[in-house]
Amino acid sequence: MDARGWLAERIPPVETALVNLLAPCDGVPSRLTGAMAHLLLPGGKRLRPALALAAAEAVGAPSERALPMAVAVELVHSYSLIHDDLPCMDDDDTRRGRPTVHRAFDEATAVLAGDALLTLAFEVLAADAGDGSARLAAVGELARASGAAGLVGGQVDDLAFEAPEADRARIESIHARKSAALITAALVGGGLLGGADREACEALRRCGTALGVAFQIADDLLDADEDDGCSLLRVEGMDEARARSEALLTRALEETRRFGEPAEPLRALACYAVRRSE
Amino acid sequence: MDARGWLAERIPPVETALVNLLAPCDGVPSRLTGAMAHLLLPGGKRLRPALALAAAEAVGAPSERALPMAVAVELVHSYSLIHDDLPCMDDDDTRRGRPTVHRAFDEATAVLAGDALLTLAFEVLAADAGDGSARLAAVGELARASGAAGLVGGQVDDLAFEAPEADRARIESIHARKSAALITAALVGGGLLGGADREACEALRRCGTALGVAFQIADDLLDADEDDGCSLLRVEGMDEARARSEALLTRALEETRRFGEPAEPLRALACYAVRRSE
Repeated sequence: MDARGWLAERIPPVETALVNLLAPCDGVPSRLTGAMAHLLLPGGKRLRPALALAAAEAVGAPSERALPMAVAVELVHSYSLIHDDLPCMDDDDTRRGRPTVHRAFDEATAVLAGDALLTLAFEVLAADAGDGSARLAAVGELARASGAAGLVGGQVDDLAFEAPEADRARIESIHARKSAALITAALVGGGLLGGADREACEALRRCGTALGVAFQIADDLLDADEDDGCSLLRVEGMDEARARSEALLTRALEETRRFGEPAEPLRALACYAVRRSE
Repeated sequence: MDARGWLAERIPPVETALVNLLAPCDGVPSRLTGAMAHLLLPGGKRLRPALALAAAEAVGAPSERALPMAVAVELVHSYSLIHDDLPCMDDDDTRRGRPTVHRAFDEATAVLAGDALLTLAFEVLAADAGDGSARLAAVGELARASGAAGLVGGQVDDLAFEAPEADRARIESIHARKSAALITAALVGGGLLGGADREACEALRRCGTALGVAFQIADDLLDADEDDGCSLLRVEGMDEARARSEALLTRALEETRRFGEPAEPLRALACYAVRRSE
């Protein structure tokens, strides 16, 4: 199955939803909307939204059922990049070839744009509820993945990361929270909105945990020459890291087997993400 | 009715819940938990939690039904203070007589502690749901109040505020978002968890909007000698501002009349907050 063709069909409604969320609105300063849109609307691969949609299909629902989760995870992803780029954190001037939000606007606006994107993710999940209990469970998934035990905690440990004390367990613990948590939330949340039962959710969770770390290793392999930060390449060679990433991808794919044919797009996306991430 | 006596009974479960949320936890860096607790646990007046609990009582429910909302609004309040204090915003070194979070820790940790507190608010609302649809509606209330059209948007306009262009409408528009939005969310969210119907929620919303602006004016009157920032005292005398605050309080109290006797604590709190806010 061709992941690109599937993406070309499924991602446009996500883009439209994101654009509509940032339409001019009473009481919202246009400078704020501009800063929120700066990174979000040009966007990246939309991997996390795609995974949310594919998870809904895997459990037998039309992908649009997972649209609120797809949008929410992309909002959280965008917020986390804006805050990570801040001068007090990674102090990056550019991202995806453009000035970072604090360079294009200013630092206060970047902090606040991130705050607003994070908040908007939960607003989207709470809007015009279909199944209230599935939506609420998705809120819980997203909050746990994004909070102190997930994304934020991973970033704290990443900032404090010191290469000499690196080992695989420590590095993968950071990857699990900084990368895999949100990817897992995309899958479980997409599944929940698609009507997944508890067992299906747990399979999606195991799939996401393996896929997220595999994806992060693949990402680090592409940036291998940069060689800073927390990467498995600090403690293992390229070949070992590549083998580890493939082994985790295999584990992720195995977890999707129970869903059969409807999980084809999910499997194609997983391979696409790990084997040619950017 | 004595607001202090009511508070002395109703607030301890909120304190206990906040302490438990920040207990040591696998995968959560202790530095992060420390920074999250720094401002939150010593705490302030706990006005917003009290309003959430009082709103539940006003609509005939036991106050503990609103405990998740009480906790959530205090988490959001604490996050907003931490981010407002940052060097790139108000650049405050102390708050409530102690070093601000970025002074006691560092700037990155302060940004991330705020992020984690905001996220935790939604996690709390999503946890062990009683009535899923009321909880989800409370998530929506909190997210709208906290986001680009509420707290965050108000802060953006407050930072850009220039005294020469000040008039009452402009100042109250900032107060409505920076102060009243979260107070309103506390009331409406507390009401929702207490089982309020749509009309009761709308009365609580009107009450919160008036009360929130009255409270902010009263706050500015107490800080009158500081005279910086966005305050009604920029364009009106102390007597006029005091009269405006009282008029808004009266309007807030009127909105609670429909609830009768069970709204006594809410009325007592409203008077307490406006007439002797600190």
